[in-house]
Amino acid sequence: MSAEFQIQGLGVTALAEEFGTPLYLYDGDALQRRITDLRELLHPRLEVFFSMKSNPNIAICALLHRHGARAEVSSVAELLTARRAGVPPQDIVFLGPGKSRAELTECLTQGIYAIICESLPELELIEELAGGLGLVAPVALRVNPSFAVKGSGLTMGGKPRQFGIDEAQLMEGVPLGKQFEHVRLMGVQVYMGTRILNEDAVVQNTARILELAQRIAAHHEFALDMVDIGGGLGVSYFEGERDLDLALLAEGVNPVLAEFAEAHPQTRMIMELGRYLTAESGTYVVRVRYTKTSMGENFAVADGGTNHHMAAVGIGSFVKRNFPIRLLNRYDAPADEVWNITGPLCTPNDTLGKKVQLPNLRAGDLLGVERSGAYGPSASPVLFLSHGYPAEVLVQDGRAHLVREADSTEDLLRKQRLVDEG
Amino acid sequence: MSAEFQIQGLGVTALAEEFGTPLYLYDGDALQRRITDLRELLHPRLEVFFSMKSNPNIAICALLHRHGARAEVSSVAELLTARRAGVPPQDIVFLGPGKSRAELTECLTQGIYAIICESLPELELIEELAGGLGLVAPVALRVNPSFAVKGSGLTMGGKPRQFGIDEAQLMEGVPLGKQFEHVRLMGVQVYMGTRILNEDAVVQNTARILELAQRIAAHHEFALDMVDIGGGLGVSYFEGERDLDLALLAEGVNPVLAEFAEAHPQTRMIMELGRYLTAESGTYVVRVRYTKTSMGENFAVADGGTNHHMAAVGIGSFVKRNFPIRLLNRYDAPADEVWNITGPLCTPNDTLGKKVQLPNLRAGDLLGVERSGAYGPSASPVLFLSHGYPAEVLVQDGRAHLVREADSTEDLLRKQRLVDEG
Repeated sequence: MSAEFQIQGLGVTALAEEFGTPLYLYDGDALQRRITDLRELLHPRLEVFFSMKSNPNIAICALLHRHGARAEVSSVAELLTARRAGVPPQDIVFLGPGKSRAELTECLTQGIYAIICESLPELELIEELAGGLGLVAPVALRVNPSFAVKGSGLTMGGKPRQFGIDEAQLMEGVPLGKQFEHVRLMGVQVYMGTRILNEDAVVQNTARILELAQRIAAHHEFALDMVDIGGGLGVSYFEGERDLDLALLAEGVNPVLAEFAEAHPQTRMIMELGRYLTAESGTYVVRVRYTKTSMGENFAVADGGTNHHMAAVGIGSFVKRNFPIRLLNRYDAPADEVWNITGPLCTPNDTLGKKVQLPNLRAGDLLGVERSGAYGPSASPVLFLSHGYPAEVLVQDGRAHLVREADSTEDLLRKQRLVDEG
Repeated sequence: MSAEFQIQGLGVTALAEEFGTPLYLYDGDALQRRITDLRELLHPRLEVFFSMKSNPNIAICALLHRHGARAEVSSVAELLTARRAGVPPQDIVFLGPGKSRAELTECLTQGIYAIICESLPELELIEELAGGLGLVAPVALRVNPSFAVKGSGLTMGGKPRQFGIDEAQLMEGVPLGKQFEHVRLMGVQVYMGTRILNEDAVVQNTARILELAQRIAAHHEFALDMVDIGGGLGVSYFEGERDLDLALLAEGVNPVLAEFAEAHPQTRMIMELGRYLTAESGTYVVRVRYTKTSMGENFAVADGGTNHHMAAVGIGSFVKRNFPIRLLNRYDAPADEVWNITGPLCTPNDTLGKKVQLPNLRAGDLLGVERSGAYGPSASPVLFLSHGYPAEVLVQDGRAHLVREADSTEDLLRKQRLVDEG
């Protein structure tokens, strides 16, 4: 066994040398395994839509798509990324609480499967824009349900929200199905929460959403072409958390899906997944630049930090909890010391790991923040202190591919203008 | 009086029309006033260095420089921005806990005034790099003091930190002043905290830092060419906070500075300021895309949110506190309703303002998050959901200048690569 972290036989030392650090490394096999397992274990009628906000890299989208994932997007850039990654329009849905006219127009001209509508004024706007283009827009209603299901890191249902239309409002309103000339209501979407690590919560969510979707469609007098049951499947990051058991989840949810599928042979069933598909595949690799002690504590100052990995500062909690962090270039060394892992920023908040059990560290060592394939650089303040976006490398079929170049200094300066030159 | 927000006579409606939203607007007069007031009220020997991390825009740096500010930088991009903005090398210092070889080399070849060194291994590295270039590097020691002074939003002294070298370690160590061939120790820097809104805390900080600097220089046997007393002057954002009284601050701190200046006629005294110089000048302007109610609460969904203004989600507090938010296009309308202001992201955390007292809002309205000139887009996850960096406009001499173009969709996609094309 090698003494260093490897992906598909490629050692981290050589990868860091070739592509530089800080660096995001993705394991294509892990991505493939994730989507394949889901498709094998869950009901065959359930379609997995990749939530591109979790990782908008085009090569990752293409890999997941090749193994059966469709795409859920929230901006024109994400929509174009999905299209260029090979996802056909009929397998793309667009959602977001504040869609612009330009975004809606792009959805319509690209002919995507469904615009997921989040408010009645948006419905009017879609009608206007589709009318202008001489089209009929396929639209699903996002519903903010009256119920909440426990077991999620960030609950969405049963609260006042900017997302969707309140269930009560919809169930009291006049039927919308026949009101529009250029809008064809055809589906329902509900998103219950994020970072769910409880199989039973997913089963309950699914059952309640399928029931709600039928009520909404019946009340508003439209045919239910699709139900999007959201997603929110979590991965464990922190001490005391455990990963979802996919077999157990399948055991619970498949009968619910089967019953609905049988009753609705023409209805597409959609699950949106981001974090669950990509988190495990990614490792954020930083190099230790300096080690020091301050008032009795060890610090390793690395070349990257929270500018590339804001989630590592702490998510869903007021107290910082550490992501799993490993010494990558001496992977089997005993972790018998305690270290603070900090980045290059000028703020004490730039802490990737606090009091982490690690081997003795020295300048030049490579550290990996594991399970970092979701909500990494694209969800971080990459321009803070003008260090820029890190490189992203996808290992696929045993070869390392640069799938996102790091920003250069000139990239960072290009868009700025002095007044006199303006 | 006009019913809309104006900068130097330019109305926000026309500015938003010309440059699009979301948009950062900066008032050049406010920037000029800030630096001029500081220079007029504080001791004439105190030099103000602009902390570029707070706002790395080149035009803002150039304006502040024209009115007497120097530059404190923390990356090659910031260093080049300062140079291109007209700041001469002798008025630039570089700091940061994890400087790379490339960054240190750039400091040396540009011949900046001082590298602020944060650890003993870094001192060795500077010696090596300066030796390779046949230069002598001017280096100031950053000290992590044993004492802390209260009254700061984020205290830095008296705690284990990745920054600087512990005071105790320095005072016990062998004299460093004569140990190096290519390093000339010439100064001391101490940074006590951030967001200080208490005049007396600044006075105490300054006195203790000046005293500490003399001890360090004496112990390590070098001439004190400069003392950098840090900065951290705050601005009020939240209810219950009050702004610093600059006259009161000057009254307290000037005698301390005067005494030191008299005893050290050759020593430069430096204060680093970021937020204090830029925060007040900036307004983040978003347009309301949709209004809705959910379970009895009003929501205005805007075209920009925490992707451009992460600080508005909450800083230095576990409970969200609102930045000042105003309706800009009907500036004098009575604020007799309560609104949640959310952005376009697919997370309930994308909330610019929670339960804000505002007039009745409608789609198309322009909202401004005030005091947003510091730690705005460059400190935010601008790529989240691939919406990109907003435009930045500086109003100077009564004219509006685009000083940073917004990212286009193609900008966002350019650096990504499919595996097959790689």
